Order: sequence, then structure tokens, then C-alpha cells
Amino acid sequence: MALNASKPVGKTRDKGSWVTFRPDIRILDCTIRDGGLMNDHRFEESLVRAVYQACIAAGVDYIELGYKGAKRIYSSDQYGAWKHCDEDALRRVVGDDCGKIKTAVMADAERCDYHTDILPKDQSVLDVIRVACYIHQIPIALDMLKDAHDKGYETTLNLMAVSTAHADDLEEALAIIAKSEAETVYLVDSYGSLYSEEIRALCDKYLEYLVVEGKELGFHAHNNSQLAYANTVEAIVCGANRLDATICGLGRGAGNCPMELLIAFLHNPAYKLRPILQCIRDHVEPLRSKMRWGYDTAYMLTGHLNQHPRAAISFYDEGKTDVVALWDELIE
Amino acid sequence: MALNASKPVGKTRDKGSWVTFRPDIRILDCTIRDGGLMNDHRFEESLVRAVYQACIAAGVDYIELGYKGAKRIYSSDQYGAWKHCDEDALRRVVGDDCGKIKTAVMADAERCDYHTDILPKDQSVLDVIRVACYIHQIPIALDMLKDAHDKGYETTLNLMAVSTAHADDLEEALAIIAKSEAETVYLVDSYGSLYSEEIRALCDKYLEYLVVEGKELGFHAHNNSQLAYANTVEAIVCGANRLDATICGLGRGAGNCPMELLIAFLHNPAYKLRPILQCIRDHVEPLRSKMRWGYDTAYMLTGHLNQHPRAAISFYDEGKTDVVALWDELIE
Repeated sequence: MALNASKPVGKTRDKGSWVTFRPDIRILDCTIRDGGLMNDHRFEESLVRAVYQACIAAGVDYIELGYKGAKRIYSSDQYGAWKHCDEDALRRVVGDDCGKIKTAVMADAERCDYHTDILPKDQSVLDVIRVACYIHQIPIALDMLKDAHDKGYETTLNLMAVSTAHADDLEEALAIIAKSEAETVYLVDSYGSLYSEEIRALCDKYLEYLVVEGKELGFHAHNNSQLAYANTVEAIVCGANRLDATICGLGRGAGNCPMELLIAFLHNPAYKLRPILQCIRDHVEPLRSKMRWGYDTAYMLTGHLNQHPRAAISFYDEGKTDVVALWDELIE
Repeated sequence: MALNASKPVGKTRDKGSWVTFRPDIRILDCTIRDGGLMNDHRFEESLVRAVYQACIAAGVDYIELGYKGAKRIYSSDQYGAWKHCDEDALRRVVGDDCGKIKTAVMADAERCDYHTDILPKDQSVLDVIRVACYIHQIPIALDMLKDAHDKGYETTLNLMAVSTAHADDLEEALAIIAKSEAETVYLVDSYGSLYSEEIRALCDKYLEYLVVEGKELGFHAHNNSQLAYANTVEAIVCGANRLDATICGLGRGAGNCPMELLIAFLHNPAYKLRPILQCIRDHVEPLRSKMRWGYDTAYMLTGHLNQHPRAAISFYDEGKTDVVALWDELIE
């Protein structure tokens, strides 16, 4: 560390160095939202409250509690409360802490009845609607952003699976998105398949369109190649100011960028590591007896092949261990 | 991937791109050597043979089987065969496969009776002696390198714990090491505390001294911050051509750069992923019932604080789970 402190290199020279910090960075905890993909969003309310309060104590800027999933698609019998994030469920978590952290939900294009299920902001404890879409869903995503913006929310667009998008399509998409209502556009490594040089090239590409429109770049990682934190750092160095992370990396499949690593790295005195460690000890590590997440060989294989992790998730759900057979299937 | 394949960025443009590979890169498996730090080098011979044969099948260039530890310090009662790597033990592993992969051992400065315990090369199946030292041990390391070189071995110098070295001392050390017998000098992130910008600055510094002397730069990572693989990729981009990795990242504490990730990344058709996956399935994953290694919160804390992982290793050895108490102790 000493070496770099005395001689910062590259883009950090004018953007913060090892001993300083970048005050324009905001972090979002999506432990409950992304982690919910591994248990059909069936977290107990006490756990959600504990994560919510830990994030407040740690100075985290935003917390995402789940999805606004359409009940016509996702029944309440099959999915827990955090798949729908009804206002009364949100209020039970937020309690008297309203306003101490910005609260977000994710709304998936074509899987959210946003006109009816997202209330006007003055009737909700929510602050932010994060619209997630694949590149072919941008028209509907734009309508969702406008709807949420008009209702009074801060909005983000999370463009998923960019590692499979064609370069020309991505350029066109960015040109359109940059003029949308979204305050932040997220580079999303859905399959955990990107490495540092690709992150740098993509961040530069996104920023080319976003900066002129006054929008922020966000980054959301997956850990299939043990690169979730590393790529988040690269995105920071490139200029991303909105960062997703989860406690213990809890998230779909190989999980996400661990909040504890990110907070330790950022050096911003507004962020506190200890409340996150308390939450790890008391709430998140104990989940491992019920849930399995985090880097493992099968996730590495789908990430390497730039595929959705569903084959690897099934592999572990079914208690399989033959990674050679999985590899043979994946490359068949 | 498609984006970067069509438009390689940065230093890879002239050093290999996503769809090509760098033929000058050589990889070394140190599963048994570094992993042995977690079980007093008590691997069964059948396991060592399995890893050895998997590395041959995978096209790995070098394999390191253990230490040449002094028996006056490390008794045979307390340590397994791979702490001493006597010639007869090595020969039982190498068997008829001699010459199919270069075989290495590590010799620690002040902890190896190298004059007597390292045989002349024509009496040994070993090809490479890797001398490991801290920066204050360079004088003895130079004598060890000369001894091994004169006996006919290829040699490397692994300068440990560089994250705690003073910048001026490191400059002086590199100037001396660059003129030693070592064919390769390794940048070693002993505490898993370095991140990409530091790796780039250090690689550039090392190469400044090594290139003019015709020496190669190597890199050896630890995974305390989930950066072992990421930092190895950064070292590659910077020009490191000698890379250490271990199957499933098996190694001391948080472990090392996983061989399976590295081989998948390198795109060199000489390297095969499938034999590594077979070894994972049949030999390395089953070790988890007896050994604990890999990234976990306690290792992250020692890495973040740029400390030796011994406090975290003890924490897990003693079955502790209170990471908050550990944190409070570490920063006391």
C-alpha cells in the first residue's frame, strides 16, 4: 500500500488516490434483492430488517429490498414478500428509519405491472426505481423509466447481459438510454464473464454517452470468475460512481461484489466496516446452513462460457458434484 | 467478450488479445507446495501423484511439490514428506513421467540447508529451485541462487511480503536481484493485500530492472481480497510471463489464483481445462472435508490490514466465528 500511496498511478491521480477518497461515489446494497434470487425471495422479515439497519449503521447510501414482480406471473404462494415489495411489507422493514437510507426496488421489463404496482412516490417509502432490461427490451424500459420519474422517483437503468450484446446494438442502446429519465445507467456483468480490460473498454464506452447528458455510470458485478470486486474496482478507476454490493457477496449463483471488501477499499470515513461485520456474524453467515451462494467451479464454467448461470444453479440445487460432466454438457 | 475481441485495448494490443494467446507465458502449479502450508505438508502420496499427473495432462509447464525445509527446524515427526522433498519421495511421485513437466521445490532463506540438502541436478529429478526470501534476507538468497545455479538448476527468486517493503529498499533490492543467477523474479503478494493499480505499478517497477538483464517477471498471488486471479491477469497484461496457480486455489489461508480460471483465461491450446476439472472432482474438492482454505471474512481482514494471515488462520483453526471480535483485536 505504501508504494501506491506515495505514487498514485493512472486515472486515480485526478480522481482520488489510495489515501484519499472519492466523495462522489454512492454505494447500493442489494443483498436482499439479488440474494432473493436464490430463495424465491423468502427472507424472514427480521433478516431484512437486520440488513436494512446494518446498512444504515454502515453509512451505505441505498438499499434495494427486492422486486416489483407482477403477481400475475409470480404468485404469492410460490414467492416470498420481496418478490413483490408491497408497500405494507416495505413499511414494516423501514419502520421509523425512513429517510436514513434511500430505499430501492427493481422492476424487470415485461415482468412488472408498473402502471398499477408502483405507487406515486408520495404514497410510498421507496425512493428509487431501478429498471432492469435486456437490450431488446429498451422501448418498454424507457416507458417504465418515464412512469417512475413522473411518479416522483429517482430512477436507474440496469442493462443486463451486456456481455452478449452486439457492439453496434450497444452503441445505439447507449445513445437512446443516455437521453432517458434514468439518472444512472448501470453496466451489468450478469454472467460474471467480463475481465478488467473489457470492463475498462465498456466503462469508457458508457461514459462517452452518459457524461455529456449529466448521467452517472453504475456497476453491478457477479462473481463467477472471482472478479466481482476486482471489476468493481476497475469500474471505479474508470469513473463509475454508483456501485452495487452485497453483504458476504450474497446473490444469485456465484454472488456479487462483497460489501465488506468495497467499504474497506473506498476509504470514505462515511462508510463503516464494523456494522457490516456484525451483520455478517449475526445474520448472513448463519444463512449458509439454508442457502448456497458464492464462487464455485460450476459457476466459473458458465461464466467462462458467457452463459446464464442457470445450468450451474441447477447443478448445485440437484446436489451434483461432477464438474467434468457439467463441462462436457456445456460445451456440447 | 465479443466487444473486446473486435477491439483489444491497452497493452494487450501488442501482447496478445482475447482471441489470441501469448506463447511466452509459462504456468507453475504450486497446489501441493502452498496447500501444504495448511496441513503441515501431510498430503498422501496418491494425492500428490494425482495432481502431478493432472498437471502433465493439462499441459502445465512447472509443478512445485513442496519445500526443501531443514530437518533441524522441521522434524519429520511433525511435518509430512513435502516439507523436505527428499529425493526418494520425489521419485515416487515423478515415476516414469520424468521430463513431462518441470519439477520444482521451494527453498526458504535461513530455513533450508541448501549446501547439503539440494543435490547436484544430475542426481535429482528436480529441474527448478525457487528461492523464497524476505527483503532483509537477500544476501543469503543470492548465495542460495548461486549454489542452485552452480549445481545445474533453473532458479527463481520469490521476494515475499513486498507489500510491506519500503520503496527505496525495494529499488535497491531489485537492482541487486536483477544481476543474480535467477532466471525469473517473482512479485509475491504474500498477504493478498495488493489491488490492480498497485500490481501495475509494481510490475512496471520490477520489469524496469529485469528486462535489461534478460530476466522474466513472475507473479504469485493470495486471495484474501478475492483478487488472486484478477491480479494475476493484471500482471499478465503488464508483461509477467511466469504465473503461479493452484487447483481450486488450494493454498495458505485464502489460497491462491485458481489454475482452472487461469487456464480458461489464457486461451493457449497447449493448456487443457478438462484434466484440471477431473482433478478437482476426484481429488481436490474431496479434501475440503479435511482441510479449510479459500476466501473468507477473516482473511479479508488481515489482507485489508496488510498483515500476515496467521491471525485469520488461527481464528478458523480454533473454530471461531466472531469476525467482529477479530476485527477489534486486529485494529487494537
